[in-house]
Amino acid sequence: MSSQQPPSIGVLGGLGPYAGLDLVHKIFDCCPAHRDQDHLPVMLYSFPNEIPPRVEFLLGSSPDNPGHAMGEIMVRLAQAGATVIGMPCNTAHSAPMLDVALARLKASGFTGRFIHMITATADHLRKTFPGARRIGVLCTQGAYASQVFTRHFQAAGLEVLYPDEAGRDALQHAISDPAFGIKAFSQPVTERARTAIAAQAESLRARQADVILLGCTELPLALEGKDFQGIPLVDPTRVLARRLVEAFAPDILRPDAG
Amino acid sequence: MSSQQPPSIGVLGGLGPYAGLDLVHKIFDCCPAHRDQDHLPVMLYSFPNEIPPRVEFLLGSSPDNPGHAMGEIMVRLAQAGATVIGMPCNTAHSAPMLDVALARLKASGFTGRFIHMITATADHLRKTFPGARRIGVLCTQGAYASQVFTRHFQAAGLEVLYPDEAGRDALQHAISDPAFGIKAFSQPVTERARTAIAAQAESLRARQADVILLGCTELPLALEGKDFQGIPLVDPTRVLARRLVEAFAPDILRPDAG
Repeated sequence: MSSQQPPSIGVLGGLGPYAGLDLVHKIFDCCPAHRDQDHLPVMLYSFPNEIPPRVEFLLGSSPDNPGHAMGEIMVRLAQAGATVIGMPCNTAHSAPMLDVALARLKASGFTGRFIHMITATADHLRKTFPGARRIGVLCTQGAYASQVFTRHFQAAGLEVLYPDEAGRDALQHAISDPAFGIKAFSQPVTERARTAIAAQAESLRARQADVILLGCTELPLALEGKDFQGIPLVDPTRVLARRLVEAFAPDILRPDAG
Repeated sequence: MSSQQPPSIGVLGGLGPYAGLDLVHKIFDCCPAHRDQDHLPVMLYSFPNEIPPRVEFLLGSSPDNPGHAMGEIMVRLAQAGATVIGMPCNTAHSAPMLDVALARLKASGFTGRFIHMITATADHLRKTFPGARRIGVLCTQGAYASQVFTRHFQAAGLEVLYPDEAGRDALQHAISDPAFGIKAFSQPVTERARTAIAAQAESLRARQADVILLGCTELPLALEGKDFQGIPLVDPTRVLARRLVEAFAPDILRPDAG
């Protein structure tokens, strides 16, 4: 079927749903369009109901590997014409899930490109902040357990700082606690979640992080702006958006305002 | 292929691209979710490059009927599993385009539902504002030429007021002028576009509209809030979002806050 479909950028969303929208929004923002027809073709598949929880799997409290559903949905995107695919969820890039998903995609005969958000971000950090060595990472307990940032950032010559154990736990609650976390309350983010996240950003600043990475796609909703107390904030979703556009249509990328 | 695909809500986006995102956002907002898995499955197909300009076709300055591409994309959504389809563009609901698109969808064997944004809005107006008779409509010149609002609102017993000819022209420029219109500049909307749109809302208020309808999906970006000088503002995208959720999963709809 894929040969009949016009090519497009495919977004594997639902991880969570608003993060999928945020990526598509940032893709549109990369295109210097003056009329509808100038925009690139984009598909968003937001099927959160099909994908088991990522953090629970990585922490061992659920045996269901979300990588299977992620792979199936990527295959559907490819069948519908996606030639470049991205997934706006840092945690889901952890090897135990992503390897399964990409193996499924490859087995389907996909000849396009999957843009890896974490390696793209490592590359972006090296180019944009050449003097930065210590990258403070705010992320889920699942991404911490899988060491997905450590693995890809160390390969790029970067040192990774995480909050301490209590801090990581507070951060996870700020993201996913049903009573006050961002996944349940994003409009607006609760003061409790915002305060908890800012406290962990502060702990990374105090430990002399050169850059703070918003390593969960929910976090830009709580920490806005380009810096935290003078330390640059980097949003991997924004990096992924630019890389997807670059891979699909390099000539139209709007110059990066930084 | 459709029988293999899990059912989902399909959004025909790209008309324009940000309006597609806005509808998906409003669909998510209808769902009282406390974790990712509580959200409904949604697909967004944003292929603005495939769809010729709607207003130009309706005004006779382009012979290319966008209804053909709209129909093809709806068929692709259906093939990918969409059982309920919506299209966040008021102008595209004009009969010369929509009839062609829906004929194509029907010919494909689609057995799901297309939710018609304008008739859904007429129904919403009658239920939510039972005393309202005069509906002031801000829309494109294309929607005015096709009389899509007049047709469906009169059928519901409502009177329709439009801005005068100069006002409609000013409104069209505020929407699509490449130099200052919302389609080219939406973050933020330019002061020139905002002022022009407010002036037309004011003219409808002065003519004693009971409700003002934001009859182009770009307009909620410029006229925010629930009323204009005390006259209720109605956003058809929000109505469509609720109807899509209701059609797909009636039990989970979040109570309407108004």
